[in-house]
Amino acid sequence: MDHGGTPRISVLRLGHRIERDKRITSHLGLTARAFGADEIILSGDWDPSPLETWESVTKRFGGNFGSSFEESPISWLRNASKSGSNTIIHLTMYGEPWRESIKSISHEKPIIIVVGGTKVSGQVYDLADHNISIGNQPHSEVAALAIFLESWFGPIDEYSRFTSPELRVIPSAVGKTVINDEEE
Amino acid sequence: MDHGGTPRISVLRLGHRIERDKRITSHLGLTARAFGADEIILSGDWDPSPLETWESVTKRFGGNFGSSFEESPISWLRNASKSGSNTIIHLTMYGEPWRESIKSISHEKPIIIVVGGTKVSGQVYDLADHNISIGNQPHSEVAALAIFLESWFGPIDEYSRFTSPELRVIPSAVGKTVINDEEE
Repeated sequence: MDHGGTPRISVLRLGHRIERDKRITSHLGLTARAFGADEIILSGDWDPSPLETWESVTKRFGGNFGSSFEESPISWLRNASKSGSNTIIHLTMYGEPWRESIKSISHEKPIIIVVGGTKVSGQVYDLADHNISIGNQPHSEVAALAIFLESWFGPIDEYSRFTSPELRVIPSAVGKTVINDEEE
Repeated sequence: MDHGGTPRISVLRLGHRIERDKRITSHLGLTARAFGADEIILSGDWDPSPLETWESVTKRFGGNFGSSFEESPISWLRNASKSGSNTIIHLTMYGEPWRESIKSISHEKPIIIVVGGTKVSGQVYDLADHNISIGNQPHSEVAALAIFLESWFGPIDEYSRFTSPELRVIPSAVGKTVINDEEE
């Protein structure tokens, strides 16, 4: 727990396809990091590229964001479910409306957010404690994850969360202001 | 205006690259549609693929979502700015914090949301009425657009917005429920 008592937030990315999903998966992990998740677990095709992107951004922009690859995500999820110590949330356009469902998700236990890629196994729907839709229209797992984390986790104090950055962006009405701590 | 008096929402996607951005751009347009935008304008490389995806999803899932291609997005934006009849919002990780800035954006005038791809011209920062960051961390234009629209536009009544769908998803706690109106 590195966010003031908030339980650990993990994101499990199912079914990554090396050619088709490279950038979507990369964006998904960066969104996880930026909106308060502690780690992302990649599954599907083995692909070092998104892992390298996430590590590189974390090194440059700070904080402790973990990333790893899991060969057997369903077994991994089944073990997490059996342990009973996590809440498993599956984001799917077929699920229940998030505005209502999100209120019933405990803030006491770690959460695992499962994000599908290609067709998601029915087992995932069964293993999940909550199948939640961010609207019932087709859009993007990146958008769904952002809205979920923003709503469940709330505002982030970037300064205290993303510690020891090499680069820091200073908000600006016009143009770009970046501080390079390496050069100071 | 097809959403109960809400002004028209357009999204301008800058700098699309045909190979690298195909799916990100596709997700961006679907996110625009799902979260309340009326149209997306593609620029950068000419690429029929995202346009086809957006049209196909709109046909199947309903509503009136427009998509088009613009060869000269900066001129287009300059004309929009000159007319003074729109509010131009540029989403950028270098901008001002959205939670504060969003309150000052008029709900009376149409808005154009500019979303960068590769390096964004300084002209865009100047033409924008608001340069807004959804956090100052690198993440995804898809996440940024979703959070912006969700915050500025608010909840959508999918039933009334996405009229005459062929397919309709019925929210479900477990599994998938889809009604195919074509088959009824």
